[in-house]
Amino acid sequence: MSQVAAQARVEFRVQPGQYRHWRVSVDGPVATLIMDVAEDGGLVPGYELKLNSYDLGVDIELYDAVQRLRFEHPEVRVVVLTSGKDKVFCAGANIKMLAASEHSWKVNFCKFTNETRNDIEDATAHSGQFYLAALNGSASGGGYELALACEHIMLVDDRSSVVSLPELPLLGVLPGTGGLTRVTDKRHVRRDLADYFATRAEGIGGRRAQAWRLVDEIVPRPAFDKAVRERALALAASRPSADGAAGRTGIELTPLAKTRSPGHETSGEIGYRFVTARLDRSAGTAELTVSGPDTDAPADVAAVHALGADFWPLAMTRELDDLILDLRTNEPELGTWVLRTEGDPRRVLGYDELLLTSAGDWLANEIVHFCKRTLKRLDVTSRSLIALIEPGSCFAGSLLELALAADRSFMLDGTFSDDRARRAGSGGQEGVPAVVVVGPANLGALPMGNGLSRLATRFAGDEAGLAAAARATGRPLGAADAAELGLVTFAPDDIDWDDEIRLALEERSSFSPDALTGLEANYRFAGPETMETKIFGRLSAWQNWIFNRPNAAGPDGALRRYGTGQRAEFDRKRV
Amino acid sequence: MSQVAAQARVEFRVQPGQYRHWRVSVDGPVATLIMDVAEDGGLVPGYELKLNSYDLGVDIELYDAVQRLRFEHPEVRVVVLTSGKDKVFCAGANIKMLAASEHSWKVNFCKFTNETRNDIEDATAHSGQFYLAALNGSASGGGYELALACEHIMLVDDRSSVVSLPELPLLGVLPGTGGLTRVTDKRHVRRDLADYFATRAEGIGGRRAQAWRLVDEIVPRPAFDKAVRERALALAASRPSADGAAGRTGIELTPLAKTRSPGHETSGEIGYRFVTARLDRSAGTAELTVSGPDTDAPADVAAVHALGADFWPLAMTRELDDLILDLRTNEPELGTWVLRTEGDPRRVLGYDELLLTSAGDWLANEIVHFCKRTLKRLDVTSRSLIALIEPGSCFAGSLLELALAADRSFMLDGTFSDDRARRAGSGGQEGVPAVVVVGPANLGALPMGNGLSRLATRFAGDEAGLAAAARATGRPLGAADAAELGLVTFAPDDIDWDDEIRLALEERSSFSPDALTGLEANYRFAGPETMETKIFGRLSAWQNWIFNRPNAAGPDGALRRYGTGQRAEFDRKRV
Repeated sequence: MSQVAAQARVEFRVQPGQYRHWRVSVDGPVATLIMDVAEDGGLVPGYELKLNSYDLGVDIELYDAVQRLRFEHPEVRVVVLTSGKDKVFCAGANIKMLAASEHSWKVNFCKFTNETRNDIEDATAHSGQFYLAALNGSASGGGYELALACEHIMLVDDRSSVVSLPELPLLGVLPGTGGLTRVTDKRHVRRDLADYFATRAEGIGGRRAQAWRLVDEIVPRPAFDKAVRERALALAASRPSADGAAGRTGIELTPLAKTRSPGHETSGEIGYRFVTARLDRSAGTAELTVSGPDTDAPADVAAVHALGADFWPLAMTRELDDLILDLRTNEPELGTWVLRTEGDPRRVLGYDELLLTSAGDWLANEIVHFCKRTLKRLDVTSRSLIALIEPGSCFAGSLLELALAADRSFMLDGTFSDDRARRAGSGGQEGVPAVVVVGPANLGALPMGNGLSRLATRFAGDEAGLAAAARATGRPLGAADAAELGLVTFAPDDIDWDDEIRLALEERSSFSPDALTGLEANYRFAGPETMETKIFGRLSAWQNWIFNRPNAAGPDGALRRYGTGQRAEFDRKRV
Repeated sequence: MSQVAAQARVEFRVQPGQYRHWRVSVDGPVATLIMDVAEDGGLVPGYELKLNSYDLGVDIELYDAVQRLRFEHPEVRVVVLTSGKDKVFCAGANIKMLAASEHSWKVNFCKFTNETRNDIEDATAHSGQFYLAALNGSASGGGYELALACEHIMLVDDRSSVVSLPELPLLGVLPGTGGLTRVTDKRHVRRDLADYFATRAEGIGGRRAQAWRLVDEIVPRPAFDKAVRERALALAASRPSADGAAGRTGIELTPLAKTRSPGHETSGEIGYRFVTARLDRSAGTAELTVSGPDTDAPADVAAVHALGADFWPLAMTRELDDLILDLRTNEPELGTWVLRTEGDPRRVLGYDELLLTSAGDWLANEIVHFCKRTLKRLDVTSRSLIALIEPGSCFAGSLLELALAADRSFMLDGTFSDDRARRAGSGGQEGVPAVVVVGPANLGALPMGNGLSRLATRFAGDEAGLAAAARATGRPLGAADAAELGLVTFAPDDIDWDDEIRLALEERSSFSPDALTGLEANYRFAGPETMETKIFGRLSAWQNWIFNRPNAAGPDGALRRYGTGQRAEFDRKRV
C-alpha cells in the first residue's frame, strides 16, 4: 500500500457510468443508494473487498454519488442507503488494506471518509435530502459509522443482524470515522452503554439495539423492504420542501477537464480552467492559483441554471475540491500550499451577491454549500497554508475565505517595481496595488466546522475587531488598512517582499511536519467545538496516535495480527 | 528516565519545609510564589535543571504550594508568580529530561503539569486568589505556558526578555501544557499571529508582545518590581472578596498518613485512613475503596474549621487525590481501576448537605472545589474505571460521582448469599441490599471539565432521562430502580455477579491499552467542549501522537537531537 502514492496516482474524478461499487436509482422523491462492493475492485492489489468492506476507491464513488444527488437530482427528498448483498450491510473499512497501509495513507483515508460522512449529514441539513440507513444485514465498524451519518437507522430484526463497533476488541484501534462521537453526541447513547457496545465485537441487534438508541427501528426480515419503502415515502412527504422540490430540474456535473504536466522529479503542474497548481518538490511547496470569473456575473439566477457546471463559482469550486483531494493524497511531501488568486475583485463580489440574494433557489443554495464544504476541506488539510496577496489578485468575498483559511497571509504594500503586476491576467494592471474586500459571504454564509465564520474564528474573543472588520464590508482595502484591521498577517513592501516570502516558506519547510500538523489542528479551530471539530480534532488525533503505536501497527500489534489466528501482544502500560 | 517507574516510586506528598525549588511568602493579601529551581534537584539523575527549567519534582512542589495557599492562606487575594533567577523567568520543561523519558512518562508528566495549571486558574475563579505572572526575565515554552495560566502577565521590557513557544522550531513537538489553546481561546491572540509566534524560537518581547496580547503589561526593568507590587496591591484591593478575606484563618494541611505494603511481584496495598487500594499486578487491576465518614456530619460549619484536615470530606479527598497521582505514575500497568465505597449513604449525604448549605464559608467552598478537582483528575486518568456497587456501599451524593465517573458500573440486585455484606464496615448489614442516592452534590456542584455535571453529561441530549434522575434526589434507589433510571450500567443478581464482574475485568485487561485510552478520552466528554477539555482532548492527543513519531522521538528526531549540534532528520510526509 505504501506503493500507492509513489506508483499510482489516485484520481478522485469519477462518473456514475464508471461506478463499480454503488448503484443509484431515483424514483420521484426517493433515491436508493445501493452499496454492492466488487470484491476484486480494490484500488490497489493486495486485498479483496469482501462483505461490502471498503477502501478509498469505494468511498470516492460514494462521495460522487452524494454530490450528484444534490446537483443532478434536486427533486430527491429521501435517500435510502442500503446494501446489495444478501445478509450484510457493510463490514466497514477493509482490514487487510488498513493493516498493509502506511501511516499517512491510513490517516488520509480516514479524513476523506470522515468528510464524506459529514457530506451526508450536510445534505440532510442543507439540501433537504434526508438519509435513511436501511440495514438489511449487519453493519460493522465503518459500516455502522456510515449508518450513523444517516438520520434514521432501520435494522432488520432476524436474530443475526447486528450493529457493532468491533475496532477496539478486534483491531486495537478506534472506530475512526466519527463513530465514538456520533454515538454519544448525535444519537445520545448513554456513555456507559456506549462503552460496553464498543467492546462487544459480536455487536448488538434487535430490541436492545433500539432501546439503547443504536438504531431507530427494528423490522422483521419479511416486512423489511416494505417498511423501508413506506418509511421513505412518509419521510419524503413530510419533508419541509416536499412540495417545491418535485418541480426541480437538476444540472449535470459534466466531466472536469484536468491536465497534468508530465511527471517530473522536482516540479509539475496540475491545471483546470480556473485553478492551477505549480508543484515544487525540492522546495516542498505547491502554489495554488484560483482565477476569478472572466465575465461579470449574470443578471439573474435563471442564467445560473442555464450555465450549470460552467457557472464560475461552481466550476471553480469543483476544480479546487478535486485539487485539494489530489494533492492531499498524491503529494504528501508538499507540506506548504501557497494560495494565490488572480482576477477582478468586483466580479467575485458580483457572483457572491447573485448567489447570496438567490438563497431560495435550490441551485444557488447548493453552490454556496458546496463552496462551504470545499473550504472546510482546506481547514482540515494537514498542510501549512500561506496566502500571498499581490497586485492583480482578487481576494474578495468568497475568495477572501482562502486567505482567512490560511495559517498566515502576506499582502504586498504598494506595487512591485518589476512587471509582476501584469502577469496576473484579467485583474492585474500596472501601478495598481492589491486590495482585499470583505463581502457578505464572509459574514456567516460559509461557516467552518466549528459553526463560526472564518472571520469570527479569527477574531474569537475580540468583538471589537470582528465588528470593525464587518464594518469594512464592500470597501476595497489596501495593505495598510487590511493589516490594521487584522485581515492579513503581514504587509511587507516591494523591497522586503521576496526575501520575507522566501524565508517564511523555507522556514516552514524546515520544521517537523508532524509538529506543524498538530499546531495547525489546534490553532485553526479556536472557540466553540462541534461534533465535526471533535471528529477531526479529538477523535482523529487519538486515532492517529493509536495508529502509530506498536500495540496496533507493530508486527505483533492487533491490526497486523488480525486474521492470522495469533493474538496481539500488547505493551500493557497505560498511557 | 525509563527506570523511574521501575526503580524509584514518585511520591506526591510534600511539605513546604521540604521545597527545593519554590519559596512562598505571604504579606497580607498578597502572596509571592518564587520559582528558584535547584539545578541539582532533579527527580532522577541524568539532567540539570538549568535556567529554572522543571521536571515532575518541581511541579509537585508547585501543586502543593497552590493548594496550600487556598487552604492555609485564605486571606490571600493575589498570588505573584515570579522567578528567583536574575534574567530568566522559566525555561520550561527540562528538555534533556523529556528527551530521555519514555513515552508514558512524558504523557503522564504533561497531564500533571496541565492539571496544576488548571488548578491555578481554578484558584483565581473559585477561591478569589488572582494569579499575576511577573516575568522578570524570559519565559520560554512551558515557562510561558505557566504565565498563561495566570490572569495577568507583566513582562520586563529590557530588549532581551521575551515570551516564546519554541517547542515546534526547536524540538519538533507542541507546547503541550495548554499553550496553543490558551493563546487563542483565553488570550484571544489572532490565530495567524499565534502561528507566527509559535514558530519564532527567539520569542517576542516589548511592545509587540503587548500589542499581540501575549502579555498584558510591559515595564522597564528599573521600575518592574515596584510596578508589580503596586499592581498586586491594586488587584488585591479590587477583588470582590477583598474585605471579607482579611479576617480568615487558614487550616493546616497536616501530613497525610499513608502506608504501603512491602513491594511484591503480584500484589500490594496502599492505605490511608479513608481510602485504600489493593493492587493485583497479575490481573492488571487496582481496587480502590473509599470509606464513608465514621460519624455523622457536625452540626455547623464552625466544626468544619475546628476539624480542619480531619474533616472527613477533606481528609478523604486528599487521600484519593494522592492515590490517583500515585497509581497513575507508579503503576502504569494496572490498567483497570475498580471503584468501591463502604459506609453509610445517609452520612455521606449529611456531609454534602453541610458543605453545600455553607457555600458562603470559604473553607466549605474550598473543600467542594477540591473534591471537584479530584474527580476531574479521575476523568482524565487513562485507566478504565469500573464501579462496583455492593451491599454496604455508600454511593450517595459526592461519592455517587465515583460511579458516574466510571466507564461502567455494576450494582448487585439483592444481596449476596454469602457473608460479603458484612465485610463492608459501618454500612454493611446482612440482608440489606445496596442503594445509590442522587444528592444535591450531583446536580451541578461538582462539574466536569466540560462544564456539565457528570449526570448531565451522562444524559447529554436526553433531557427526560436527566430530569427523571434529578427527581429521584434523596431517594435511596435499589438496583432495579437505579438501572431503570440509567444511573448504573448493569444490575446482575448474586447468581451472575461474580462471573459477570470477572469476565468484564478479564476482558478489559485483554484489550489494547492504547485503544482503551482513546476510547475513554472520547466517551467521557460528550457534549460541549471547554478550554479544559480541548487541552486534555485535542491538544494532548496531538502531542501524544507527535511524541510517538520518529520525527520527534526517533534517534534522528528533533527532541533527541536538541543540543547535539546536529539538525533533526525528518520524514517530510505530511500526515
